[in-house]
Amino acid sequence: MENRTRFKGHIVDIVAKRIFGGEIRIVDGRIDSIKECEVDESSPYFMPGFIDSHVHIESSMMTPVEFARIATQHGTIGAVCDPHEIANVLGSEGIELMLKLSKLADFRFAFGMPSCVPSCNKDIETSGFVLGPEEVDKFMKRDDIYFLAEMMNFPGVIGKDPEVMAKIASSKAAGKPIDGHAPGLVGLDRERYAEAGISTDHECTTIETGRAAVKSGMIVQIREGSAAKDYAALSPLIAEAPGMVMLCTDDCHPNDFVRGHVDRIVRRAISDGYDIMDILTAACLTPVKHYGIPAGLLQVGDPADFIVVTDLTKDFRVMKAYINGEKVFSSKGQYTANRLLERSVSVQKDLVLHMSNNFNAMPICEEDIARIATKDENIIVASDGSLFTKHEKGQVDSSVQKMVVLDRYTKGAKPKVAYIKGFDITKGAVAQSIAHDCHNIVAVGSDDKELVKVVNRVIEMKGGIAVSDGTIMEDLPLPIAGIISPLCGHELAFRCTLLQEAIERAGCRFHSPFITLAFMCLPVIPELKLTDKGLFDSVNFKFV
Amino acid sequence: MENRTRFKGHIVDIVAKRIFGGEIRIVDGRIDSIKECEVDESSPYFMPGFIDSHVHIESSMMTPVEFARIATQHGTIGAVCDPHEIANVLGSEGIELMLKLSKLADFRFAFGMPSCVPSCNKDIETSGFVLGPEEVDKFMKRDDIYFLAEMMNFPGVIGKDPEVMAKIASSKAAGKPIDGHAPGLVGLDRERYAEAGISTDHECTTIETGRAAVKSGMIVQIREGSAAKDYAALSPLIAEAPGMVMLCTDDCHPNDFVRGHVDRIVRRAISDGYDIMDILTAACLTPVKHYGIPAGLLQVGDPADFIVVTDLTKDFRVMKAYINGEKVFSSKGQYTANRLLERSVSVQKDLVLHMSNNFNAMPICEEDIARIATKDENIIVASDGSLFTKHEKGQVDSSVQKMVVLDRYTKGAKPKVAYIKGFDITKGAVAQSIAHDCHNIVAVGSDDKELVKVVNRVIEMKGGIAVSDGTIMEDLPLPIAGIISPLCGHELAFRCTLLQEAIERAGCRFHSPFITLAFMCLPVIPELKLTDKGLFDSVNFKFV
Repeated sequence: MENRTRFKGHIVDIVAKRIFGGEIRIVDGRIDSIKECEVDESSPYFMPGFIDSHVHIESSMMTPVEFARIATQHGTIGAVCDPHEIANVLGSEGIELMLKLSKLADFRFAFGMPSCVPSCNKDIETSGFVLGPEEVDKFMKRDDIYFLAEMMNFPGVIGKDPEVMAKIASSKAAGKPIDGHAPGLVGLDRERYAEAGISTDHECTTIETGRAAVKSGMIVQIREGSAAKDYAALSPLIAEAPGMVMLCTDDCHPNDFVRGHVDRIVRRAISDGYDIMDILTAACLTPVKHYGIPAGLLQVGDPADFIVVTDLTKDFRVMKAYINGEKVFSSKGQYTANRLLERSVSVQKDLVLHMSNNFNAMPICEEDIARIATKDENIIVASDGSLFTKHEKGQVDSSVQKMVVLDRYTKGAKPKVAYIKGFDITKGAVAQSIAHDCHNIVAVGSDDKELVKVVNRVIEMKGGIAVSDGTIMEDLPLPIAGIISPLCGHELAFRCTLLQEAIERAGCRFHSPFITLAFMCLPVIPELKLTDKGLFDSVNFKFV
Repeated sequence: MENRTRFKGHIVDIVAKRIFGGEIRIVDGRIDSIKECEVDESSPYFMPGFIDSHVHIESSMMTPVEFARIATQHGTIGAVCDPHEIANVLGSEGIELMLKLSKLADFRFAFGMPSCVPSCNKDIETSGFVLGPEEVDKFMKRDDIYFLAEMMNFPGVIGKDPEVMAKIASSKAAGKPIDGHAPGLVGLDRERYAEAGISTDHECTTIETGRAAVKSGMIVQIREGSAAKDYAALSPLIAEAPGMVMLCTDDCHPNDFVRGHVDRIVRRAISDGYDIMDILTAACLTPVKHYGIPAGLLQVGDPADFIVVTDLTKDFRVMKAYINGEKVFSSKGQYTANRLLERSVSVQKDLVLHMSNNFNAMPICEEDIARIATKDENIIVASDGSLFTKHEKGQVDSSVQKMVVLDRYTKGAKPKVAYIKGFDITKGAVAQSIAHDCHNIVAVGSDDKELVKVVNRVIEMKGGIAVSDGTIMEDLPLPIAGIISPLCGHELAFRCTLLQEAIERAGCRFHSPFITLAFMCLPVIPELKLTDKGLFDSVNFKFV
């Protein structure tokens, strides 16, 4: 028997770029017809759902199933995902896991193949896996891989590094787009990068770079994530280059994510007076077309994927979301919420429960991190929410804490120790196994006993976050690859709030201490970082 | 085949009042043996779980299944519950629902029969149901009813009101305890109240009333809930009258509840230096004995109900909880959490989905609440977190808002309007169907249009909370009786945070605006209240 439904309201046609009163008829999950008719002015608006055009699901600490559930609450019905983080930890198996989980969700996922695993040499930092050109080629041929994910090695592209070119060739052979990542690249280098076949960039942070990217034929992804916020700089492109702009979050942390997603960027753009069709082209149409996402666009014959919003003002609210004609979110439907939550927490467990998370570190003791500071010590200077650090030399005074990094992959590895300033953890310590891109254990603390306590708690959990305020330990296990939790998204966000409160009690005043900490090992970003191999000068690209 | 487990650690025997190293052997969900042995000093502590000795689950806005899931995360394994709120809305059917749902949880529930439904005359306020002596007698005979719940009508007890005495007689005939509720009652009246067979009181807020209650043979329940906080006043009784004290929360709101429960009171008592055995006697032993709760006390032969805590210091953390030998909480076990969440959201839906919630109110319009204030208007003066109001007379200036109450039970009922001061809702409005004890619709707002908007949203949801900040409407449907949500506890707490933020944007500076609002209709508490029947002078007990 056919399954038929009808909806009446304002229809937002982002292909024909017009809005009209109409009735949508859905038969068996597809748009059967759309007929114009008179509708009440207060009727809701029906439009295609939002697409996050570049996101690392891992940053939400949620599985793809739970990510999808929370995203649809904000009107996002699809996402272009780069499983770069889990690939660094678990290699191909990690990518397979994300793909399998994503297929369990009612959501339009388009996964890419990470192009740079690891992002730097094995001598500089220990990662879980290396994915070379053969591995990339194998994945690029698959139907469930939509694109080659952010090609961070832009000097490699411009200099025609053979491995890089091989990966690009695989993507071209498969007829799939290649994502860029080229902070600050302009002029001839930008042209060459684009000519090599790189067609997007989410690392434009100034309007000049954004315009250069568009000029070279690249689509610019305007990013508003938990840490990086580029909308203010790039929003003029929405009007200047409609069709050459998409919206993305890149990294969206649990606490932020439960509060909003692409809808926040859309609201802001409406508030700033951009044309609604230009905004929705960036928020829905362009990503669907560019990546070939199998999401419906509210056209006759399309799968019935759409959202229902109160209106198109700057304060619009998402009322409902549909995928294949099936309701996946209703702001009033708590039983819909429960049904999806039930599915979300149940479907994933068989897939992840018995999986290795590549965590082999063994407990450390105070002797392992004992160290006497010199008079002219190298000090890492961190600042809130920044991936960058400063390199200071001087005495270790009370403003300086110890930083510890431990290779999580090698059984019996010994920690590396350095000094760091900025976190102001005056009592207690923090440790976590989220540390871009290799996700070793990183810790900062005021005394050795507390440092050992939190590092060993992370080891005991085989991945997670632990904060001690000197008395109470707050923790969050991340049993999936040491970076993802199977918890319900709202419980996860709540646990992150408890961690934030604990680190504040420990003295830290950073707005995003865990994000900041996660970048203190990343050797490709200046100036001074500590990896599991030692203190690395990222300006001169050598160990200190 | 037998199901056997062993645990080793510090055993806290609250019956023999000693702590020793030992091994517990569990066979088929019961304590088979406990043997003393040497244990490591850092071993965890095994002890009976906490009992909330008086709670209205409805205040958590959670179903009993979800209440149990969140409670066990805090080491509470049982609760003595009075389904007074849902009984006012749905009558016997509401009590039956709570009983059925409670049986689906791994938790030691002891439900009582509400003694005062409604809490006042039908001419003063419209309630959903009246439960008379016959109804009470029927329930008191049931095995799943453990006690007669808080006898609020203490003048009726002292004056030997026939209906009140009949209810007491039913409880006595069934051999079940009778709970008290007698704020400020001392001297001869207290003696008479106790002599009538009332054996507990959770309304002692001063040490004098507490001592009077104990002297008269009553057990005092020290209450630390979201609104009422009596620990500071009553804690000396823990040492003065061990065995005559229990701990309770009475009303615990979602945001508070996800953060802690009875464990918070226990930690505070440890911090204040009370004897650990006295504390645990109040937190576990006395309620189990007094109400005959079928919870294990970690004695050989008992059901294996216990919790595992890190230590017995003021900073102890609950690591695990067991019921019938089955793990119902593990601080590290996210898959345990998911399994229970999955059950929690799935088991309840069939029971509640098609149930009436006794919500018949119809949308109102601005004309319904139009009113011209006199020069000498009666003004209700509310204060944060208080059940009491002041009665002022004067002009309606900008510090005064309109208050609206609408009978939710009667189709086509018209709202009553009055003036209220204190909420400071300078733009927008708030409405909710949580309004003790009858749970009609109560609203406060700065202009009629906004008031109509939020009241009608609550009506459209058939119960819930709606807040408008003048632009954006935030809401929470409460589809079960208009007072309970089927959502996951953490999502519910998150939604309450959004409501709180919205009411702050509307101008309200109250710490607990929704709790305060919920008591603005309660006619039994002075001085001036607005019910669905009109403005009521609770001092002279007559309509103004």
